[in-house]
Order: sequence, then structure tokens, then C-alpha cells
Amino acid sequence: MDTLPSLIRDLVVANRILAHEGVVDGYGHISVRHPERSDRMLLSRSRSPELVEASDIVEYDFEGKACDGDTRPPYLERFIHGGIYAKRPDVHAVVHSHAEGVLPYTISDVPLKVVLHQAAYTGTHVAKWDIADKFGDTDLLVTNNDHGHDLAHTLGDASVVLMRGHGFTAAASSLFKVLRIAVYLPVNARVLTDAHTLGGQIKAMTPGEITRHASIDTESPASRRAWEYWARRAGCEHML
Amino acid sequence: MDTLPSLIRDLVVANRILAHEGVVDGYGHISVRHPERSDRMLLSRSRSPELVEASDIVEYDFEGKACDGDTRPPYLERFIHGGIYAKRPDVHAVVHSHAEGVLPYTISDVPLKVVLHQAAYTGTHVAKWDIADKFGDTDLLVTNNDHGHDLAHTLGDASVVLMRGHGFTAAASSLFKVLRIAVYLPVNARVLTDAHTLGGQIKAMTPGEITRHASIDTESPASRRAWEYWARRAGCEHML
Amino acid sequence: MDTLPSLIRDLVVANRILAHEGVVDGYGHISVRHPERSDRMLLSRSRSPELVEASDIVEYDFEGKACDGDTRPPYLERFIHGGIYAKRPDVHAVVHSHAEGVLPYTISDVPLKVVLHQAAYTGTHVAKWDIADKFGDTDLLVTNNDHGHDLAHTLGDASVVLMRGHGFTAAASSLFKVLRIAVYLPVNARVLTDAHTLGGQIKAMTPGEITRHASIDTESPASRRAWEYWARRAGCEHML
Amino acid sequence: MDTLPSLIRDLVVANRILAHEGVVDGYGHISVRHPERSDRMLLSRSRSPELVEASDIVEYDFEGKACDGDTRPPYLERFIHGGIYAKRPDVHAVVHSHAEGVLPYTISDVPLKVVLHQAAYTGTHVAKWDIADKFGDTDLLVTNNDHGHDLAHTLGDASVVLMRGHGFTAAASSLFKVLRIAVYLPVNARVLTDAHTLGGQIKAMTPGEITRHASIDTESPASRRAWEYWARRAGCEHML
Repeated sequence: MDTLPSLIRDLVVANRILAHEGVVDGYGHISVRHPERSDRMLLSRSRSPELVEASDIVEYDFEGKACDGDTRPPYLERFIHGGIYAKRPDVHAVVHSHAEGVLPYTISDVPLKVVLHQAAYTGTHVAKWDIADKFGDTDLLVTNNDHGHDLAHTLGDASVVLMRGHGFTAAASSLFKVLRIAVYLPVNARVLTDAHTLGGQIKAMTPGEITRHASIDTESPASRRAWEYWARRAGCEHML
Repeated sequence: MDTLPSLIRDLVVANRILAHEGVVDGYGHISVRHPERSDRMLLSRSRSPELVEASDIVEYDFEGKACDGDTRPPYLERFIHGGIYAKRPDVHAVVHSHAEGVLPYTISDVPLKVVLHQAAYTGTHVAKWDIADKFGDTDLLVTNNDHGHDLAHTLGDASVVLMRGHGFTAAASSLFKVLRIAVYLPVNARVLTDAHTLGGQIKAMTPGEITRHASIDTESPASRRAWEYWARRAGCEHML
Repeated sequence: MDTLPSLIRDLVVANRILAHEGVVDGYGHISVRHPERSDRMLLSRSRSPELVEASDIVEYDFEGKACDGDTRPPYLERFIHGGIYAKRPDVHAVVHSHAEGVLPYTISDVPLKVVLHQAAYTGTHVAKWDIADKFGDTDLLVTNNDHGHDLAHTLGDASVVLMRGHGFTAAASSLFKVLRIAVYLPVNARVLTDAHTLGGQIKAMTPGEITRHASIDTESPASRRAWEYWARRAGCEHML
Repeated sequence: MDTLPSLIRDLVVANRILAHEGVVDGYGHISVRHPERSDRMLLSRSRSPELVEASDIVEYDFEGKACDGDTRPPYLERFIHGGIYAKRPDVHAVVHSHAEGVLPYTISDVPLKVVLHQAAYTGTHVAKWDIADKFGDTDLLVTNNDHGHDLAHTLGDASVVLMRGHGFTAAASSLFKVLRIAVYLPVNARVLTDAHTLGGQIKAMTPGEITRHASIDTESPASRRAWEYWARRAGCEHML
């Protein structure tokens, strides 16, 4: 089990990786479940992921309240994270992203299928959430616990939920897995879009293939080498 | 209210941000209304936005004449800005851009709908202007007050006007809002183009959703964090 | 009239600009007609444009022979340049490029129309050359004077000729004009491709619009500011 | 014939080039046949290509066993390389890549034709392999000798085999040739995809054109200049 300081350090690295790999820009965020207090999560204060430092990480409960009296402005959409942790004990890390490659699938009725093994941690089903279904006309943001719980309800047992006109949220059992989903789902989406351009038949991964690939150990050398690569590119060698 | 020096500093930062985020290249420009003289605007002399410094900023009247005797060559298309400020007292900042993602919609009859919440400041209607409608064969440039007034007339109450074969112009009540439109409208356009590739049904934002999102306070922490992020990426930390 | 040293310096800058703007990679080249000897051209020895220095520039006649006994390997395709200069006294600069945005139009029968004012120096007609029409199965390269003359014949009075499965060649009356064509033709091509994706009606520039825009003085402040911008980005401030 | 140290140095450079040109990311690898022991190959330990150094290169037999007792974790998919070297004595270098441009053709039944001369080393036929045809539901990875031999069988006499939902593998008679295929096949793929977007007739290279272009000497100045260019861009001037 990770100690708190090492997990915070990895969370900072993960923030930088998401920014450097183009998964997030000024917006988007990543959290982990607290390693000692399973009813809390660690998430940066309202800051762009590329700039996040260890001192920006705050402990929140799943209602989105800072646990240690931190008064710095929080992310408006921290309810995305709280809603999922509250509902899914198996989830230890959550990413929310507006990655451009995925966005077309949030506004189209064409399904985002997993076609690339690199994206297999996404799982066999991608959920879709339209905030308007339950809440009517909003600003599309997940700004309260009702929104967060409804999003988590739509996510269900899946790992990814598309959010109409907004982005996606990924949930996984570890920081590495959620990072891998967040990096490769946009690639999978762009490749699928280009395959639609070609106009022929498209062969997606089968559920069996997805399940087998998704069971690869995230502590394997292949996984660790991706972490090393991403972290170095993001300027975080010194944090490895 | 911003003081003149702080507004000029922000305008320089905004020039650099537009260049770094790929909204402008050697061409394109951004202006603000003068904070003390509502009949004047601040705009760089003819210089590529990435290179603009405080000493490049010139005061112009809305006919495009330099107010302080500055004799350095002005932008040929400063009439875009003057025409809009003259007609729209609510507008305090204007961007003109040739951003590639938006350009297909300037030559196609397929409408550029707002589909992403990030682009909601664009508003519920995107205007389209074809200089040929009134002026016949030209070089497509907005090079005099007649052109500028006609463009502003077509813009009407909207925030964005597409210019056929040329680019777009965005107008907003603040520098941050116009910057946000300019950064995210190309993203919205690319995502919509990709959604068309998929060939299914597309769900745009509703007018109610756009209006709600567009009313988010630009002084919110979320807005300020984007400014910090963009400015740092553009090498302007020292100007924050 | 440019002096020889200043023209060579500008040619080096133009090489770096083309590389930095993504118009050429390890391949592709740019030449100018000799300012004092109208039957000669200045072109780098076989070197990637990003790396070209003044000492790499060689004088060639229009048959592709080095005039000063230079024995360093020349570009295999220098006949592109010689063929055009020999046929077109009005041409003072030539670019050959494999820019990706343009390539689809070299293998498709869909025409590459000028739709953006930035690309207007391209002119009202884009020529298309298929080396197989006259020479049957080749390696697609322009490796002798027969190839070069045939390409120039197909170019005719136009400014751009597409080369099937290969790239394009642009010819213009000045270094700045040919550079502008080379930078903006790929943008025009990508925008047109995206407009085709949208599936609606597309409005190209009219011949009158193209002609008017193409007559803009290349010594205007707007032109000089693009050169400054491109040169600085390419790391050539010290050569301005 | 290359000496072992110079070949290892070139292999390190090739790793860095593939990373810098976007052909590989944290995953993907490149190998060469041992210059003195034709039954062995040189391949990095499990490390991202951008980070590979000479000390990472390991000698493996074609069953994927390290020959010198190296115990560092190997690439999981080294069987791709061993399978091909064992079957194809003419092959001296192999690249495995997940390059995004090529991926749509691995999941679509639309053929990846060679349309650009730059991609002509790809050859007249691109093979396609679906691991499910022989092995049913797997994780799509080539993780044992049976997989490797089957892949090599499908490759046959070709230079490139597409791997469904995964990527491609290229095999050639030299490091330069395989690098050139790996760099330009994604370009060829993207251009072909865009040509499909245009919706007109597409003209591919003829077999005769491909064969002629593919016979160009890789020791030509044009080839050496590409190597110099790619190596410098990848930060490897000091290794030239």
C-alpha cells in the first residue's frame, strides 16, 4: 500500500502527465482515494493540472468539503469524484477530461467502441450521460452532489462515462490504470473516427479480448516503463 | 475598473496567449476598448501577436486613426475593431483570427453550432458575413470603415461572426471572455467536424444551456486558473 | 535589387522557415534565381532545409550543373527548379514540398480550389502533373531535364503544380510570395478537406477575388511582419 | 559491414528518431540482426524508445532468450522480432509500432495502399494479421513464439504487416529502410484517409513505380541527409 506522501507525489506527477499528453488543458482534474481514510479523496485545489504541486493537494470528503479547513477555492466539479468514490468502493482513482478526440462521441449517437488494445482498460461498455435527462437546461457542469450521484449512477459498473457536450470521466482501481485509460481513450476515439472516414467495415475488440487485456498487471515492466516515459516527458524525472 | 497600464499589460499577455494556443499566427489581432475613453481602442501596431510588447500598443479612434500621432504602420484590418466598438457599447474586447478549425465553416453552408460547454460564451447564434454580398469582388480584407461597419451590422447582437474564406471575429464584454471564445471556438468547430464524420445524429447545446453557461462569472477561480495556465504556457509568468 | 549576400541570407532563412512551419521535412527544397545572372539559380547542396547554412548554397545552371565546380552531392530533383526558371522568366523563386495537407489532392481527382485569402497567391488555377502520363512507370522523382521540362510545361502560367503521389511545386516572382504560397497552400488544402467532410455546399474564392488579393504588395507592412514572425520562430532573429 | 559498436550506436539513434518522429510512444520497439551472429538480434531491454541508451541493448536469440545472461525485464513482444528474423534471412531490421495514422487500417477492411513515393519501401503488398484468426480471444499481444511465427507467416515476403487493433510491424534489409518505412507509412496512411474524405477517385502507385522507387540506394546522399536530419532533431548530433 502506498504511503500518503508517495501517493501525493504520484498524484502530482499524474497531473503533469495528463497535461503534457494533451488529455487536459487549463481544465480537467485527477484524484485518488485516500490510502488510509477510504471515505476521503485527494484532489488539487482549483489549479490547472500542469501547474499542480504537492502543496496544492487537498483532502476532501465525498460531499466535496475540505477536511482540513483548507479555504483555497476548490474545483467547481469536485462532485464528479466524490459521487463515484461514494458509490464504487473498487475505484481508487478518477480522471475528468475534455480531451478533444473523445468529444465527438459525447454529442453523437455513434458509439465509442474499444478498438485498440491500448485502450482495453476502458472495458467492454462505455456509459453515456446527458445531464439534461434529469436536470433539464443547466450549464452542463457537475456542480453539486445531486449531479455527482446521478453521473455515478449512469457510470454504474463501467470505467468510463461520456458526458454530453462536456468530456468524459474515467474511474479505475489504480492511478496507473486511470491514467492509461485517459491517455489512450482519445487515441482510440481518433482512430475510430478515421476508420469511419474510410467507410468500410470496422472490427472492434471482442469482450473477451478486452477482458483479457484489461487483466494485465499494472505492476508489469511494460506498465512501469510507460510511467517512466510519461513522467520524464512531463519534466518529472526528479519525482520518480 | 482596470487601470490603463494593467490593461495594456493584460492585452500583451492576451496577444501572446492567442499565438501560443494556435488561434493566430503571423496574422490576427486582439484589441480592448480604452478604459477611460470609451471612444478609443487599444491595439498593437502591425506586428505578429507573438511578438507584441507594451510599446507596440497604440490608441486608435474607431475610424482607425492613431490618436497620439503614432506613425508606425497599423494593421490593415483595424476597421474590424473600430466598426464593432462603434456599434456595440457592450463590447470591450475584440479578436480577429484565421484559426484553422473554424475556417471550414466560413466556406460551407453547414452551420457552426455550439456543441461544447467550453464554447458557450459564443452564444446562441453565430453570424456569417460574406464580404461579396455588399462589396462584390474584393481581396476579402476589411480595409476601410465601410467594410467594418457592414461587418458589425452583420454581427448584430451576436458574439461571433464568421467571415467567408477569411476567419472569424469575436466580440465580448471582457478580455477574458473574448479570449475564451477565441480559444474554444476552434475546438468546438473541430469536434463538430469530427462528429459529422461519424455520420450519426448530433446533439448541440440548447439555447438555455448556452445562456446558463455563458453567465458564469469570469472572475471565478475557474476563469482565473485558465488565465494563469495560458499565460504561463505563453511565457508570461512575469506579467501575472 | 537584392545583393547576392543578402539574397543568400534570405534563402537560408527561407529554408529554416519552411522546415519550422512544417512545409518540408528532411526532403523538399527552395531556390531563387541569381540576382545578377538570370540564367543561374541558387539552391542548397543536398541537405535538409532545417540545417541549411549560407555555405551550403550552390550556383547551378538550369541543366542542374554546379557553376563553380562544387562537387558536393546536389539534390536529385534540382531539375524541378531549372526546368521552371528556363521556361518562366517571371519566376524568381521556387519551392518543392511534400506537405501533407496538399498530398491528398495529388492522388484524388477532386480539385484543390483556393478557398482562403491567405492562399490567394496560388492563383486562379492549380495545375496537376502525373509523371506517368509521359514517362510511364518511374520512381516518381524528377531526376533529369526531360522530367523538369515536362513539369514546367504542365505548370504553364500557373503558380502551383501538384505532382501525383509526390507533392507540389510553387513558383513566384519573389521569395516572399513563394514562401507564402508554400505556407498557406497546405492550410487551404486542410480546410477544404474538412469542408468536404461537412458535406454541404462549398464556396471557393472567385477569380476576381484571387486576382485582387494576389496583387497585394509583398513589401507591405503585413508581408514584412509575417517574414519577421516566421524568421523568429525558426530561430533566425540574428539574420533579420 | 557495420561493426557491432557502430550498429548499436545507430540502433540507439533509431530508437530516439522513432520516438521524436511520433512513430512510437512509451511502447513500440526496433531491432537489428546481429552483424556477426546471424542467429541473434539486438533489441533494447523493456524501455521506452525515447530513453534507450547503448547499455540498454541486449542480444537475444530468436526464441527471445537473452544470450548473455541479462536479467533485466525484456519487451513482452520480442517474439515479433525473433519470428521474423528466423523466417526471413533477408531481413536485418524490424520495427513494431502503434503509429496512430496506420491504426484505422488495422480495424477496417479498406486496404492501406501505397500512394506516396516516400512510402515506397513498404512494397506492393501490405499484409494483414488478425491474431484471433488462429488464437481466438487473446489480449492482442504477441507474447510467445507461436504468435511470433504466425505473424511472420502472414508477413510472408512483404515488408509490412498490419496487426488488428494493435499496430504494424515493418521488416527491411537495413536500419535505414525500416526507419523510412516506419516514418512514412503513417504519413501515407493519413494522406490516404484524407483522400477518402474527398470522395473522388484515388490513384495509388503502380507496382512498377513502387518497385523502382524501392530500389533507390539507401546509401545515396538523399538517404543520408534524412538520417542526419532525423538524428539532429532527436538530439543525437553527437552520435552522428
